[in-house]
Amino acid sequence: MIIDLKEGERLDDLQRNHMRIIQNPEKFCFGMDSVLLAGFSRIKPGETALDLGTGTGIIPILLAARTEAARLTGLEIQEESVDMAQRSVRLNGLERRVEIRRGDIKEASRIFGAGVFDAVTCNPPYMISRHGLQSPNGPKAIARHEILCSFEDVARETARLLRPGGKFFLVHRPFRLAELIGTLLKYKLEPKRLRLVYPYVDKEPNMALLEASRGGNSRMSVEPPLIVYREPGVYTPEIYEIYGY
Amino acid sequence: MIIDLKEGERLDDLQRNHMRIIQNPEKFCFGMDSVLLAGFSRIKPGETALDLGTGTGIIPILLAARTEAARLTGLEIQEESVDMAQRSVRLNGLERRVEIRRGDIKEASRIFGAGVFDAVTCNPPYMISRHGLQSPNGPKAIARHEILCSFEDVARETARLLRPGGKFFLVHRPFRLAELIGTLLKYKLEPKRLRLVYPYVDKEPNMALLEASRGGNSRMSVEPPLIVYREPGVYTPEIYEIYGY
Repeated sequence: MIIDLKEGERLDDLQRNHMRIIQNPEKFCFGMDSVLLAGFSRIKPGETALDLGTGTGIIPILLAARTEAARLTGLEIQEESVDMAQRSVRLNGLERRVEIRRGDIKEASRIFGAGVFDAVTCNPPYMISRHGLQSPNGPKAIARHEILCSFEDVARETARLLRPGGKFFLVHRPFRLAELIGTLLKYKLEPKRLRLVYPYVDKEPNMALLEASRGGNSRMSVEPPLIVYREPGVYTPEIYEIYGY
Repeated sequence: MIIDLKEGERLDDLQRNHMRIIQNPEKFCFGMDSVLLAGFSRIKPGETALDLGTGTGIIPILLAARTEAARLTGLEIQEESVDMAQRSVRLNGLERRVEIRRGDIKEASRIFGAGVFDAVTCNPPYMISRHGLQSPNGPKAIARHEILCSFEDVARETARLLRPGGKFFLVHRPFRLAELIGTLLKYKLEPKRLRLVYPYVDKEPNMALLEASRGGNSRMSVEPPLIVYREPGVYTPEIYEIYGY
């Protein structure tokens, strides 16, 4: 197979089912948050899932490797990322299960229709303010700051896109947890499962993994802590397992 | 000093400033949740605090020992508990700083007035349903199940009782976390600090400690995990420290 890489791009091995992904380190590379979100998401065999703001397609590609989902769709607004993601899909021979579409999260339910997905995943921008940004139109800024869409946009569109009982899986920063839960409840997305990711066992968590259900009762489960490092530079066994080593 | 114990009661040493408490094991004894809540609560020197549903007064008595609060009030509806709590206050010589009042949480802001406390603490009943209860009027049932008041009652009264910027400290079960946060937000009690208590490092948390502020922005901090047991029967150093050993 001829690998179609453009200038500045590189090919990374995902350590799972020989999957690979095209990224451009000058633009934006996926982080541990995407890998943990893919590991946290529960997509059943035959289900359909949409990833909002898919970037280079890391989450649909990991979910294609990890689950028996029938169809995985990634929505991305930035043309360069769409192009990289589409080439990664072809490179992995996933054209029949994974589709990358260009479009705006704020328009997602208009693009795809209402109640059409069993699951939605999202690794949204974490930061509210664009204060102090050097280049607010750059791909890193758009991925990290709420420039093109807010969490409220994500929740509103997700509530429309999911079938009743459908699941929403997201990763975010713990400092926004109360606001996230408030916004999910506003759109009748009931938080059902929370896992906090702590870099070390004695440190504050730096990521929150959340599952919400469209409708349902208000009982939720909080899972055991996910600890990343056993000691500096050495992951815990659970992290090695999620990464597929 | 003559210790005034009634039938069935016992005297327990609180391991802190020689404080002791009268309890009746047939009725209800305080648990680790009350001790952790007292440890989690931040009351500044000279401040006033109210404990809603104080039972035998464990939280005001521990806070009297741990803080320089000017005045600590406990509100309790059950006459027998009020009586035990008042005798414990005298036994510890705390009459000038701690007052126990008989009354209903649902009436608290009518009893004390609006905006009068710097802090409110509460270890409320955790269970919603009274389903399957053998004796729904017994003190254990009232302490554990939402028979005489709901969490919504607690949040509504707390929002009225606190001065602007005043703090609410509570302990509850993680399975109700999303609902708790939704109810706090409804009454403009902004969640500011969350700590999850995990019995073991690889187990699900069984308590959530929450601090909310009357008003304020929506940024919160999630603290390092509080792990209770290092191994069966052996507390972690942090638990020994909170207990004051």
